[in-house]
Amino acid sequence: MTTPIYFDCDTGVDDAMALGLLLASAEVDLVGIGGVHGNVSAAQGVENTLRLLSLAGCEEIPVAVGENDPLCGDFGGGVPHIHGSNGLGGIALPAAAATPVEEDAADMLVRLSHEYAGDLKIVAVGPLTNLGTALQRDPSVAERIASVTLMGGAALAPGNITAVAEANIANDAEAAQAVVSAPWSVTIVPLDATMTNLFEESDRQQLLAAESEFVHCLGQILDRYFDFYVGEFGRRCSALHDPLAVAIAIGAVAPGKAPRVPVIIDTSDGPGRGQTICDLRGRRPDQVDRDGANVRVVLDTQDQLAPVLIDQLLSFGRKLVAQGGVGS
Amino acid sequence: MTTPIYFDCDTGVDDAMALGLLLASAEVDLVGIGGVHGNVSAAQGVENTLRLLSLAGCEEIPVAVGENDPLCGDFGGGVPHIHGSNGLGGIALPAAAATPVEEDAADMLVRLSHEYAGDLKIVAVGPLTNLGTALQRDPSVAERIASVTLMGGAALAPGNITAVAEANIANDAEAAQAVVSAPWSVTIVPLDATMTNLFEESDRQQLLAAESEFVHCLGQILDRYFDFYVGEFGRRCSALHDPLAVAIAIGAVAPGKAPRVPVIIDTSDGPGRGQTICDLRGRRPDQVDRDGANVRVVLDTQDQLAPVLIDQLLSFGRKLVAQGGVGS
Repeated sequence: MTTPIYFDCDTGVDDAMALGLLLASAEVDLVGIGGVHGNVSAAQGVENTLRLLSLAGCEEIPVAVGENDPLCGDFGGGVPHIHGSNGLGGIALPAAAATPVEEDAADMLVRLSHEYAGDLKIVAVGPLTNLGTALQRDPSVAERIASVTLMGGAALAPGNITAVAEANIANDAEAAQAVVSAPWSVTIVPLDATMTNLFEESDRQQLLAAESEFVHCLGQILDRYFDFYVGEFGRRCSALHDPLAVAIAIGAVAPGKAPRVPVIIDTSDGPGRGQTICDLRGRRPDQVDRDGANVRVVLDTQDQLAPVLIDQLLSFGRKLVAQGGVGS
Repeated sequence: MTTPIYFDCDTGVDDAMALGLLLASAEVDLVGIGGVHGNVSAAQGVENTLRLLSLAGCEEIPVAVGENDPLCGDFGGGVPHIHGSNGLGGIALPAAAATPVEEDAADMLVRLSHEYAGDLKIVAVGPLTNLGTALQRDPSVAERIASVTLMGGAALAPGNITAVAEANIANDAEAAQAVVSAPWSVTIVPLDATMTNLFEESDRQQLLAAESEFVHCLGQILDRYFDFYVGEFGRRCSALHDPLAVAIAIGAVAPGKAPRVPVIIDTSDGPGRGQTICDLRGRRPDQVDRDGANVRVVLDTQDQLAPVLIDQLLSFGRKLVAQGGVGS
């Protein structure tokens, strides 16, 4: 029994790790991937996704190009100082064995919502433009989705693109507001949780030591990303933003404090623009669900993701080597 | 050697506790008090202040009525469900022995800034309308103030009037923005610190047991306030909002993590209106000062305020009893 998942991503470094975790999970049926602007352009992200899939011998998974601009405004140019010029830390992967499908990401999502009506889970780890576009084209898509899990926002933690705004949400605040207010079940994995689930240099070395080229490459592309985080954590390591959203969605890591509370995205032009406003007022220290709230905010996790992630990726790598495919 | 202090307040329950701490401190020369809208109307707050001063035998301290409306908009009517209909938990204190001075609070502040140029400290525990008005009338007032310490904002903690906004700041966002951007040294004591410095029922009983009528009354007025906090903390107790700002200002409690960082008040009409946006991004877990930032944000304290506060108030009460004045 596998779970059909549509994965929406802006494939930079942590998206690649998240993709690896999805591919490694035996319970996941990755039925489609959409690319969106964010860490890199939508086209670059899709190219990265296709190369990673080919390296993992999974080139049959359909990948659709999605929106390259937010619902309002234009693509900001990405963050090459974090993810490298190509989004994969400057590491050049072998050419992909496949090309994007014809339909765009929003159409793919709407189609899959019919094919897997009631069962399809969405995991979104980039700006939410593709989801917002799908909701605009067919608002009923929300009724056919089992759940949406997204990496985004900063509930009580500082933001990363402004003092209060996290990049995925802020890079398309209008789409994010559409997603949190649509009638589906949403789980937000914000910086509060992702900045406390870290991947250390010793963890990276385990990936580098893998026989599988796919897993080895994941270790390589983390190199530059680790440099960026010295300014944040004082040492070479990284947050596990996107992989944590995948892990929460597939149950590889359990949420700790994760109340359902009212959530609104600041779409004003004020200094709070892009903030994910989570109403966490109320009795402390226990955060409790609020009546009628459809958005769950994961404030922390019961266990750390890194050991689970390493175990999954190394197992997947051994499988690839045993199969003797390209990813070995 | 005493420190001249101008105290700006909207005298509700915790303002009364803060006033008690100021009166109890031998190092403080309370040279003027201004009343402002907030917990109650400016007039009601001044009446409460005058009655408390009389009860403490300190009716010689000048009290000025200040602004009853924020710089933009109108007084919202206060919070009788928290502070009681009269702002003092419904407890009727004896009539005051003095009346307000003729000048208004902003004029008093400007005058005092000349009389104590370079030495005057401001402690503000209500909306910042009087300070904002003083800055409008004479921007140079900022140059003559030694420091401003204010209770307000929510840096990483949830807000209390909205999900992200704290009442003192949100009740006059424009004045707060004027205060944090003026060229003086500002220390903000936000909910992060005040919601983790609590006063318990056993603490209140110590005040109630005091021989001094003034101190006994402080215990009485906390009764209703404690009921309100059951919804927040799950038991009868209270946060020490305003007393903590006084304690930080006079050195009775030392700040713990308290970085100087860029601070801006959200004066937009978006959902973040009234938020105190403190830029706490950067290397963790140590928060470090940012170049050029003139606002220090107290995220926690080295010690708990409650024992210090009780000790100061009980000592003051014994002094009043020994003097045989009205407050005994």
